[in-house]
Amino acid sequence: MSLKLTILGCHSATPRVNAHPTAQFLEIKNHHFLIDCGEGTQVQLRKYGVKFSKIKHIFISHLHGDHFYGLVGLISTFRLLNREAELHIYAPKGLKEIITLQLKLSNSWTQYPLLFHELNSTESELIFEDANVEVHTIPLDHRVYTNGFLFKEKLGERKLNVNAIAKFSEIKICDYQNLKNGRDFTLQNGTVLKNDSLTLDPPFPLSYAFCSDTAYFPEIVPLIKNATCLYHETTFLKDKEALALTTKHATAAQAADIAQLAQVKQLIIGHYSSRYTNKEDFKIEAQEVFENTHLALEGKIFEIA
Amino acid sequence: MSLKLTILGCHSATPRVNAHPTAQFLEIKNHHFLIDCGEGTQVQLRKYGVKFSKIKHIFISHLHGDHFYGLVGLISTFRLLNREAELHIYAPKGLKEIITLQLKLSNSWTQYPLLFHELNSTESELIFEDANVEVHTIPLDHRVYTNGFLFKEKLGERKLNVNAIAKFSEIKICDYQNLKNGRDFTLQNGTVLKNDSLTLDPPFPLSYAFCSDTAYFPEIVPLIKNATCLYHETTFLKDKEALALTTKHATAAQAADIAQLAQVKQLIIGHYSSRYTNKEDFKIEAQEVFENTHLALEGKIFEIA
Repeated sequence: MSLKLTILGCHSATPRVNAHPTAQFLEIKNHHFLIDCGEGTQVQLRKYGVKFSKIKHIFISHLHGDHFYGLVGLISTFRLLNREAELHIYAPKGLKEIITLQLKLSNSWTQYPLLFHELNSTESELIFEDANVEVHTIPLDHRVYTNGFLFKEKLGERKLNVNAIAKFSEIKICDYQNLKNGRDFTLQNGTVLKNDSLTLDPPFPLSYAFCSDTAYFPEIVPLIKNATCLYHETTFLKDKEALALTTKHATAAQAADIAQLAQVKQLIIGHYSSRYTNKEDFKIEAQEVFENTHLALEGKIFEIA
Repeated sequence: MSLKLTILGCHSATPRVNAHPTAQFLEIKNHHFLIDCGEGTQVQLRKYGVKFSKIKHIFISHLHGDHFYGLVGLISTFRLLNREAELHIYAPKGLKEIITLQLKLSNSWTQYPLLFHELNSTESELIFEDANVEVHTIPLDHRVYTNGFLFKEKLGERKLNVNAIAKFSEIKICDYQNLKNGRDFTLQNGTVLKNDSLTLDPPFPLSYAFCSDTAYFPEIVPLIKNATCLYHETTFLKDKEALALTTKHATAAQAADIAQLAQVKQLIIGHYSSRYTNKEDFKIEAQEVFENTHLALEGKIFEIA
C-alpha cells in the first residue's frame, strides 16, 4: 500500500489568496499525520476534504510563523467541534507555552486531551512508534531550532511462499505465523528448513522524509538514505544562493543534490519565495541534478510507492 | 465626508472557505483602523485591496480566537514587508504577552515600533485621540473581558456664513479663523456680533460603534446614543435566545432593540453562527424592530454618513 501525501500549503513566509504557508497531510498505515500548520491550514483542510477527526498527531518543524500560526486556531476549532480524542503535538520546546497561554487567556481549555511532546535534542530521535510506523526527527540547519521528520513504515511480516510450503505436509496452518515471523522449520526427521526457503521478503518499507526549512545540510543524508520520497524546501533558485546561505534556506539545485546524495526514489520541492512567479523554474533547476523531481502545489496529492 | 467601513470577515467561531471570522477596516478622517483580526485577516486585506502600510492602529475587542488569531501573522508579515511605521495595538491585557512570546521564540522581533495599549478597565475610556478623531471603549458583557469601540469624529470648525460676513467690511480674512473657532466679533463702534450670526454649524460629527461580542446589554445605550452607525453582533436568531443568554451572545432582535433604544441612524449585523444557512433571516428578524438594518457580508463596503 502506498503513502498518500496531500499538499495543503507550499509557499514561504506570508499567506496570500492562493499561496498558503507550509502544511501537509500524510496518510501512512492508517495514521493521519498533519505536518506543519501555517495560518489558514484549517481552511485548507476543509477545502481539500480532510476529515478533522482523523488527525491525531501533528508535527511542527520549527517556530517560524509560516509553520505554526494556524495551530492554535485548529486546536480551538477541534474544541468547538466537541472533539474527544487525544491530540498529540510534536514540536520544538516553547510551543506548549504559546498554545496554553492563549487557551488560558481566552478561557477556552480543550475538553479533549491535548498532549505536547516538546523537542530540544539536536540528535535524531525516535518520537513516535507503534506496530506499523516510526517517526524520527531529522535535525536541520535553520535560523531557529528546526527538525524535519522521517515517517517510516516498519518492516512487515515475511510472506508465505505457498508453493514451497505445499511440498511439506508436516507444515500446518498453525505454523504459518512462526514462518511469517522468520523462524526456520524443523521436520520430524531433524532436517532444518531455512526460513527463506519457505517465505518471501516482505514489501520494502516505504518512507517519507519532510525537510523544511533548512540550509544545504548534507549531514542529513545518512538519516534519509534511500527514502521513498523526500520533501526538501527550495525557497530560492541558484541565482540567490548567497541569500539562501544567509537566511539558512536552500536552492532547488541544493535540494536536488541532497536527493541525489541520499539516493531517494523521488523528490518533492516547495516553500517557494514569492519573488518567483514561475514555479516551473524550480523544477527545471532541480531536474538538472535529480530527474525524478516534482513540484508541491496546493491540493496536489502524491501517491508515494 | 463619510466614514468607509469594509467588512473583511463577519462569521463567528471557526474560519471556513468562504466564511471568515471578525475583522473590519474603518476609514475615518484619514485614519485607517483595523478592528479585530481573526485568522486569515491578512489574506482578506489583500483580497479586498487594503494597503497594509495604511494600518497604524489595530483594535482588538477580546481574546477569543476568532477575534485575534490573525494578529500575530499580520504583525509578522509587516516585519517581512520591512515596515518602519509605528503599529499601535489596543487590546485586553494579555495580548502583549501572547504576541511577544511568539516573536521571542521565533527570533523575529519587529524592526518597527510595536506599541501595545493594554485594556482592563470596565468603565468606558478614551483610548485614542487626535485633532479629528476620538476612540472610546464600550465595555460589553461577554464570557471574557470584552470591549466594543466607539469611533467618533470630533466636532469640526464652524463654517463661515459668507453672505452675513460680506455685510461687514471690518471683518478681514485674518479674522476668519477666530470666527471658525466660535469667537464673537466686536466692531470698532463697540457692537458685538454674535458668532452664530456670522457662521453656520459644522457638519454633525459621524460616529461608528462596533459591538462584538456581547449578550443583550442595554447598559451600552448611553455610550452609543445617536451613533451614525452601530455594528452589533447577532450570533443567533430569537429561536436560540436561551443559548444566546448562556453563551453571552445576542439575537438579531436584541441587536435591533439596542439600535432602537440608542436611536442610531443605521444598524449593521454580523457574527453569524454557522448553524444558519440563510443570512436574510437575520435581517428579517432585526427589521421587525429596526428598519434600517443591513447585513455584514465579506467584502461589502458601507459608506457611513
